[in-house]
Amino acid sequence: MRLLNELDRKDSTDVGRELHRFAAELYPICRSITGDGIRRTLAMIQERIPLQISEVPSGTPVFDWTVPQEWNIRDAYIKDSSGKRIVDFRQCNLHVLNYSTPVRATMPLRELRPHLFTLPDYPDWIPYRTSYYEANWGFCMANNQMLALRDDDYEVCIESTLENGHLTYGECYLPGHSTDEVLISCHACHPSLANDNLSGVTVATALAEFLSKRDLRYSYRFLFIPGTIGAITWLARNQETVGRVRHGLVLTGIGDASAFHYKKSRRGNAEIDQAMTHVLQHANPSSQILEFSPYGYDERQYCSPGFNLPVGCLMRSIWGTFPEYHTSADNLDFIKPAQLAESLRTCAAVLDVLENNRRYRNLNPYCEPQLGKRDLYRSTGGKAIGVEISARLWVLSLCDGERSLLDVAQRSGLPFSAINDAAELLRENGLLSVAPEGATGRTCEATNNGRSLVRQSHS
Amino acid sequence: MRLLNELDRKDSTDVGRELHRFAAELYPICRSITGDGIRRTLAMIQERIPLQISEVPSGTPVFDWTVPQEWNIRDAYIKDSSGKRIVDFRQCNLHVLNYSTPVRATMPLRELRPHLFTLPDYPDWIPYRTSYYEANWGFCMANNQMLALRDDDYEVCIESTLENGHLTYGECYLPGHSTDEVLISCHACHPSLANDNLSGVTVATALAEFLSKRDLRYSYRFLFIPGTIGAITWLARNQETVGRVRHGLVLTGIGDASAFHYKKSRRGNAEIDQAMTHVLQHANPSSQILEFSPYGYDERQYCSPGFNLPVGCLMRSIWGTFPEYHTSADNLDFIKPAQLAESLRTCAAVLDVLENNRRYRNLNPYCEPQLGKRDLYRSTGGKAIGVEISARLWVLSLCDGERSLLDVAQRSGLPFSAINDAAELLRENGLLSVAPEGATGRTCEATNNGRSLVRQSHS
Amino acid sequence: MRLLNELDRKDSTDVGRELHRFAAELYPICRSITGDGIRRTLAMIQERIPLQISEVPSGTPVFDWTVPQEWNIRDAYIKDSSGKRIVDFRQCNLHVLNYSTPVRATMPLRELRPHLFTLPDYPDWIPYRTSYYEANWGFCMANNQMLALRDDDYEVCIESTLENGHLTYGECYLPGHSTDEVLISCHACHPSLANDNLSGVTVATALAEFLSKRDLRYSYRFLFIPGTIGAITWLARNQETVGRVRHGLVLTGIGDASAFHYKKSRRGNAEIDQAMTHVLQHANPSSQILEFSPYGYDERQYCSPGFNLPVGCLMRSIWGTFPEYHTSADNLDFIKPAQLAESLRTCAAVLDVLENNRRYRNLNPYCEPQLGKRDLYRSTGGKAIGVEISARLWVLSLCDGERSLLDVAQRSGLPFSAINDAAELLRENGLLSVAPEGATGRTCEATNNGRSLVRQSHS
Repeated sequence: MRLLNELDRKDSTDVGRELHRFAAELYPICRSITGDGIRRTLAMIQERIPLQISEVPSGTPVFDWTVPQEWNIRDAYIKDSSGKRIVDFRQCNLHVLNYSTPVRATMPLRELRPHLFTLPDYPDWIPYRTSYYEANWGFCMANNQMLALRDDDYEVCIESTLENGHLTYGECYLPGHSTDEVLISCHACHPSLANDNLSGVTVATALAEFLSKRDLRYSYRFLFIPGTIGAITWLARNQETVGRVRHGLVLTGIGDASAFHYKKSRRGNAEIDQAMTHVLQHANPSSQILEFSPYGYDERQYCSPGFNLPVGCLMRSIWGTFPEYHTSADNLDFIKPAQLAESLRTCAAVLDVLENNRRYRNLNPYCEPQLGKRDLYRSTGGKAIGVEISARLWVLSLCDGERSLLDVAQRSGLPFSAINDAAELLRENGLLSVAPEGATGRTCEATNNGRSLVRQSHS
Repeated sequence: MRLLNELDRKDSTDVGRELHRFAAELYPICRSITGDGIRRTLAMIQERIPLQISEVPSGTPVFDWTVPQEWNIRDAYIKDSSGKRIVDFRQCNLHVLNYSTPVRATMPLRELRPHLFTLPDYPDWIPYRTSYYEANWGFCMANNQMLALRDDDYEVCIESTLENGHLTYGECYLPGHSTDEVLISCHACHPSLANDNLSGVTVATALAEFLSKRDLRYSYRFLFIPGTIGAITWLARNQETVGRVRHGLVLTGIGDASAFHYKKSRRGNAEIDQAMTHVLQHANPSSQILEFSPYGYDERQYCSPGFNLPVGCLMRSIWGTFPEYHTSADNLDFIKPAQLAESLRTCAAVLDVLENNRRYRNLNPYCEPQLGKRDLYRSTGGKAIGVEISARLWVLSLCDGERSLLDVAQRSGLPFSAINDAAELLRENGLLSVAPEGATGRTCEATNNGRSLVRQSHS
Repeated sequence: MRLLNELDRKDSTDVGRELHRFAAELYPICRSITGDGIRRTLAMIQERIPLQISEVPSGTPVFDWTVPQEWNIRDAYIKDSSGKRIVDFRQCNLHVLNYSTPVRATMPLRELRPHLFTLPDYPDWIPYRTSYYEANWGFCMANNQMLALRDDDYEVCIESTLENGHLTYGECYLPGHSTDEVLISCHACHPSLANDNLSGVTVATALAEFLSKRDLRYSYRFLFIPGTIGAITWLARNQETVGRVRHGLVLTGIGDASAFHYKKSRRGNAEIDQAMTHVLQHANPSSQILEFSPYGYDERQYCSPGFNLPVGCLMRSIWGTFPEYHTSADNLDFIKPAQLAESLRTCAAVLDVLENNRRYRNLNPYCEPQLGKRDLYRSTGGKAIGVEISARLWVLSLCDGERSLLDVAQRSGLPFSAINDAAELLRENGLLSVAPEGATGRTCEATNNGRSLVRQSHS
């Protein structure tokens, strides 16, 4: 089955518009790493795909970390002495330092100042700031607005609660023929930020919805989690089974107008790294492939040396490098329907590679088989051959039971789909057999750390 | 012994002229993959070198293929209603679709049309077309001539026979000190086409003639065969001994004015690949080295995965990419005496590397030996050293019984001949010994497939 | 301990001036590979650092060589018929062909000519020439002066002695915690040539002086030896212990204004090669890294295949490639205080890497440890991180007990010092442990030759 073919039956303009519409629905919610914002978000995703929601109590130890108290907020503002709300959480939830402790006080500007966060370089934008693990309160606002503040007594109010509660995350599991899994992870903890990461959330949801109707080789696990602490919590609770993850992707910032950036897994040449590189080289030549670094999104946790999972990260603009990053300018205008649709399509293309990337063996390895008598060659000699016949010759030459079809595609320079078509046709003609899937694929790339962990937890 | 030195004793202008003269003798013959054309060609080669001619009956199974019926042709033409031969096989044997079934009929233009092959992009050239494995008849002609055909009744006649007979090929074996072989293969099945492949045929013949008078390390096997089916037939009949091939070259299209192109063997770093790369880099820097691909000439069969022989392909223009390819423009003007001579010289240079590429061991590995007292160094200190002394130092530094002289040449950037001279001089001076030729060289590069085949057939 | 930090407490202008002053003291001495010139030089070095002086008798066999007779010289000149010294050893000791046999004779110009060495391309410079192993006498002079010589009878006098005596070299051993050694070698046999090699001698002396006051991981061995024969003699006398050399550097020509050139050891990726490459890339980006070649200075002997020690060579201008090389123009003006000081600094920077390049193991490999609670992270989320935190994340990601800190520095692109700081901080915080130094580091890069030699001599 070819996922891309299936996907391309839909009009891509419709697909993009629908993705953007869903992002717009999710946009106003004030999410954080815990609390009702992420709960409401997960509920909205659950309306589209089968989502199992987990609640992990505050205080639960997860590796070196502890699940924090749950944060909720009802209202927040700064009023000037005339009683006018000059900063209003209800207008934009970025105005509050995320995880602010509750406060209600009146104070002069001098005292308020250290609690105000602005962006001098982008004086009209509101920054997004957090203080998850250090008790603090604060407001984020436009630098121009802050500069205009006059000496006055200001009433500040943050109606938040920080109490024992739960960390919430959602998990969508789609069983396939194999218990080996493909992990798709996105963080769903940011308030009104569109590219980071409603683009990831909406594309992942659409991808899960799309896959849920298909016959799949791998099982798929979609995670909608709070960043960092969510990935750590999930890993801590799934140590025993995490070894099943054969391929993984973190999706983040895939709605803006930039070309794609794919950051490789820590392994550097995992199958997902090769597959994504191949797909982007052929479909989006302006894409860039980045080596792994230990800073970024939740690939940091999945690729931590004890796990070292083959999880890469697909982005368009790279987090931290575009001005709109973590500001009010990362809004619904910053993400585009066409780019969202193309991101979904790219994911499907990569999954096509993973789903079909098998090892075949040429059953007729001594000299070329006579393709002509099977009607697999051109009939008049002396003329050039095209991509189709070329792909058949490459498959026959390289399929030795060791090389995967992706290896053949990379070596030949032909797109995976052409190689895959050729392999299927040759197999139908009795010239190729599928090599048994041995331990080869799975364990050869795992590190000792990763393997021993998995074994321990099974025993 | 240095082959190149021996060859360079002859005047290269004479060598080139003689190669071209032989090509001119062979040019008019209407060859095909079977029949009297190739027989006559082999007989003419046999006048120059010891050639064993094999005849393989039609119907003989050779791997996935079957030796086809034998094709012969006496005459062919198209006459217009006035009785004038407007297309005449006797004028140019390309006019007939090679392997045309016999035909004698009169038909209107409309009916004749599907049997006419032309080249709209080169309207004055006659294409070369074949139909070996699908019964068909046809004529090839200039597009301009075809366009000028008026509505008329045309008499078409192809006096050919397609009957059980034989496939014919020639083999010249020159024994050397070792039974390990160098295979030189060229196809000899094309009618009046000069570069493809009378250039290969004539250079291979001259090379065999030249080697036949020399004391050789390796045994040499020259094949003059019909393309594809000939190579397949030869491989099928020599499965037991094909493992002796340590190095091989397919020669094709080496007479035109282009720079050299060398296509590597499927192994990609076989000794022949390294040797040819080295020779071309030093002597013909405008040459290009191409990675293996499974489309091309008979390296397709020699390098098929079951055999995976270390056989590369030397070309000037790459088949299929120059306009004259497989047309009447690939004629005797298209190949040049100077280029033919240089191609022969390049082959000799590569064989020089193969013949002399041994492993040596530095017998004095602790500090440099004192070259000065052996008169192998400059006498006044403080001045620069030249290539000769540099080559000696490289040989002493790197010859550890593992690295070959070619490895040393590549690492040092010096030409193989300088490294070889240095090694011989140092050996004469007792500073170097030849390392025993172990299993290293032979089997290390063979694939499992290739090896197991050879073993099976010996047991 | 950080050597560079310690060194940087001194004013680099003072350091450079002092290095140049010492070079100026050594400059006038007429050194050769034996004799009182090198003895006096070693005595002056001994005033600064603890130097053990060895005297090896003439005639001692050292591998393929023999320690030569000792050469000393008191005076030398050419007088014209008027009795005027037109060439005078007392004016410049380069005037005499080094190792000239004694001569006292009067002869016409015609007879004198073959004994005169000049530089036609640099007509005012005096070349430096030697004849160690072939009995000869001669004078070196400016080409312009030679051209001006008129037909005359010339009195030539070389008051030299060439008799059984000794070869002299100096060795400074600084014990560290490990008996594994770092070897720093420079030749001290050239007469009045500044860059080649008083630059090496003075920097090595200053480096030894500097290290002698420090607590060191490795033991350090500084060699001040005559070129070639000195290195061969030292290796011959220390075969049993030379396996202790884990890292080594030859210092030569490090005082001129050129950018650095580092020539790698024969191993090509020894730790010293990686360390020097890293240091130069970060501190001196215009530096160039050269592959090993078997011609050069005493790395030729240390890297001879029987020893194959991990010894590279640090230069500024490459010997033999700058016009002043081996001429009177390689004088005290040609070397600069600032460059000498920078060369010393570069050596200290490399030793910093070697001294601190350990393997660590992340004790918390499952997910990232929570750096924030240890005050090792920024406090407000949403902002960028700097080099310090980035280095911590890289160390945690890559320190698996196998990779060295230098590996981590290279992979991350961060300077070694940042990685080292991060590792120490994380170790102090209980997140990292030092991996036991196994056989890994030492023997994995050694060749069979090198290893077997060492073993034999220990047994």
